[in-house]
Amino acid sequence: MAELSRDAFLSGRVQVWQPVLGYRAGVDPVLLAASVPAQAGQSVLELGCGVGVASLCLAARVPGLLLAGLELQPDYAVLAQRNVVEAGLEMDVFTGDLSAMPAPLRQRQFDHVIANPPYFRREASVAARDTGRETAMGEDTALPLWVAAAIRRTAPRGYVSFIHRSERLPELLAAMVAGLGSVQVLPLIPRAGRDPQLILIRGRKGGRGAFRLHSGVLMHEGAAHDGDRESYTPHIRDVLRNAAALNFPL
Amino acid sequence: MAELSRDAFLSGRVQVWQPVLGYRAGVDPVLLAASVPAQAGQSVLELGCGVGVASLCLAARVPGLLLAGLELQPDYAVLAQRNVVEAGLEMDVFTGDLSAMPAPLRQRQFDHVIANPPYFRREASVAARDTGRETAMGEDTALPLWVAAAIRRTAPRGYVSFIHRSERLPELLAAMVAGLGSVQVLPLIPRAGRDPQLILIRGRKGGRGAFRLHSGVLMHEGAAHDGDRESYTPHIRDVLRNAAALNFPL
Repeated sequence: MAELSRDAFLSGRVQVWQPVLGYRAGVDPVLLAASVPAQAGQSVLELGCGVGVASLCLAARVPGLLLAGLELQPDYAVLAQRNVVEAGLEMDVFTGDLSAMPAPLRQRQFDHVIANPPYFRREASVAARDTGRETAMGEDTALPLWVAAAIRRTAPRGYVSFIHRSERLPELLAAMVAGLGSVQVLPLIPRAGRDPQLILIRGRKGGRGAFRLHSGVLMHEGAAHDGDRESYTPHIRDVLRNAAALNFPL
Repeated sequence: MAELSRDAFLSGRVQVWQPVLGYRAGVDPVLLAASVPAQAGQSVLELGCGVGVASLCLAARVPGLLLAGLELQPDYAVLAQRNVVEAGLEMDVFTGDLSAMPAPLRQRQFDHVIANPPYFRREASVAARDTGRETAMGEDTALPLWVAAAIRRTAPRGYVSFIHRSERLPELLAAMVAGLGSVQVLPLIPRAGRDPQLILIRGRKGGRGAFRLHSGVLMHEGAAHDGDRESYTPHIRDVLRNAAALNFPL
């Protein structure tokens, strides 16, 4: 793997090595981690864990989790393992495809399965120059297969939590309600008056609640991007800086 | 049919006879009508038209529409016809079931098909005492069948527009994307910080746009219901009083 950088999340509470030129984690895995209703001691599987940012951020907020990850690209899986060890944590990181999972994973179920799947349909996007970035950004595996794999690996009463682009809601929702109950969507509104580009979606295995669409969480203050000045709302700043939870409304 | 009342919508621009004790139209058909992107001279079919409130409100905003309606309950269909005639308009009102439509309707396609289907699942709700109200409020026909029937009756490039409870979004969305493109959801947010109970959803036959989830339209000002004082936001007040359009964001 080419040149690496060491980058900080949650005000430095999470530090990860990641490729300088490949796919690089942004705030999305941090937001995903903040939304997961995990409690101390529970087990968590991250599908497509990359270098481990979401799992590490979740572990920074909730102590004593049993972490596992699945990553298609061996270079990224190696970095995830390294990042976890340097954080003084443990995580079972597997290299493999979620539609043909390694046997040790197929034999387990988890209290939480989380994912931040690639965002762009390959046929609709220009391939990125870096191969790792292309695999991490483009879809080799259809989104409904991600959800189906997550549901299979979720224990009874466990939760599946995804973050993805709002334009993919129809596929996500159909796949979620096919195997989960109490499905909820929390739109992330970039600014007042703008439409959400991202959604958090989660469901519960065996959940009996009706579907809920929430009105959404505001990410930035002000009407337009204000140059270099940070404009996150206080709640989102607390999520990104201090590992605060991003709870779905009760 | 039992006792009737004559009720006003859009500040009296629309007046309808409807049963005192049966299902009574509220603001929902008015909001639906306001959201339909119809232009003068186009054709509109309303499925489950009741006494005709949505079609009449749409006709009050957009001149020269060719109106048609389908209503399961003969008493309501008769009232719809009466309301249309007293408004000085014309509308082909058919009595029948949308899963076995009258032949004259099956031979036509429309620029717009609109519906405000019954809101409550029969098995999950206490039956209303009035039979007409029960049929209008409860579901005899599954929601995906409403959408499928609407799609069949929509002309190429035409629109299907529904208003429904947000908890039914999974079924609505799956049925919409199965036959339409450019599907969009506009949540109706009752008050700031509350979750939407209702959504407007529409799609276009042959539309090629990606799915869009909008951040929603605020219905009321203030944090709680303020007794008898009207609290609609200016935009919604304009929609309900002056037949203003409730456009989806561009």
